[in-house]
Amino acid sequence: MGRPRQFDEDGVLRTAREQFWATGYAGTSMETIAAATGLGKGSLYGAFGGKRELFHRVFDDYCTAAVGSAVEQLGGDDDQALPRLTAFLLDHARTSAEPGHRACLLAKGAAELAERDDVVSARSRTAFEGLRAALARDLAAARRSGDLDADADVERLAGLLLAVHRGIEALGEAGTDEAVLLGIAQAAVDGLPRRTR
Amino acid sequence: MGRPRQFDEDGVLRTAREQFWATGYAGTSMETIAAATGLGKGSLYGAFGGKRELFHRVFDDYCTAAVGSAVEQLGGDDDQALPRLTAFLLDHARTSAEPGHRACLLAKGAAELAERDDVVSARSRTAFEGLRAALARDLAAARRSGDLDADADVERLAGLLLAVHRGIEALGEAGTDEAVLLGIAQAAVDGLPRRTR
Repeated sequence: MGRPRQFDEDGVLRTAREQFWATGYAGTSMETIAAATGLGKGSLYGAFGGKRELFHRVFDDYCTAAVGSAVEQLGGDDDQALPRLTAFLLDHARTSAEPGHRACLLAKGAAELAERDDVVSARSRTAFEGLRAALARDLAAARRSGDLDADADVERLAGLLLAVHRGIEALGEAGTDEAVLLGIAQAAVDGLPRRTR
Repeated sequence: MGRPRQFDEDGVLRTAREQFWATGYAGTSMETIAAATGLGKGSLYGAFGGKRELFHRVFDDYCTAAVGSAVEQLGGDDDQALPRLTAFLLDHARTSAEPGHRACLLAKGAAELAERDDVVSARSRTAFEGLRAALARDLAAARRSGDLDADADVERLAGLLLAVHRGIEALGEAGTDEAVLLGIAQAAVDGLPRRTR
């Protein structure tokens, strides 16, 4: 029964993401999104089903892109696995410390909503697990290449690095100095069990 | 010129904290707080100066209490410093994983506001630094007692443990399993440089 979607859905989603990202879920109204997109509120509701559903769509897309980016950065040849991991964590520290950097929507959305929105908490957990699995695959590659100890428990270490990654994000949100965040990332890498020759 | 404060200020602050904690800054109106406290909006504004100032007061009190609690948990005799640190991180993992657990207001407030509210970001950084310093003191005690390597860089390790602590918080917000969070906490302790005999 709905009218055909005669608008740029991707563009509307981008605009909605900008709004939610800047002012949070509670701080963003459908009126604001409608005004920013030039659509009527009725069209927004018709296309996306309401503010909660629109946020879920934006959040899902964001998580997919964030995990995809990590998977890409961490994938490659075994002999570069440890340098890749180091670069991944240092880049994250550097980005998180940038003045004016907008903290990860995954972190912000989970902090605002996860405890009262099961869709957001489940999607956050899936994203965290995707990130952890990418770290575990890289660590396993570093173990194969001989950079890490043959007995290294890569699943366990991946959990630890995931926490460090999310902790750097949280500290960066508050404007923690780049040197501090880089020191944390490097300390995490230095703490990995190296091959004993 | 203001009227004398003929109400229970601590009670009002507790109520305001509950509201902000449950629904965030943007999701909480002064009307809601006034209704919950039984005060008129005028009295609230008169006493606290506005929603932003009221949040700052609540956030400051929360950060003071959170850091004070960590300082207390991590303080004590040198020979118990490493067991104390282990218990501190495992307790944090256990608490963060409790179903229905309300995530730390420091984490939630920083995620929602730090990038656009300098008071919140500065207070968050001070709280993070207080937590880091408490971890560093405990690590130094563990080094004195001989549980950690004499060459251990406790300032650097404290930064790493701070990130792990905040990461466990962030993962807990999304409902991550207790076993996963406990594994992360234990892996962080296991990764510390022990005394080589």
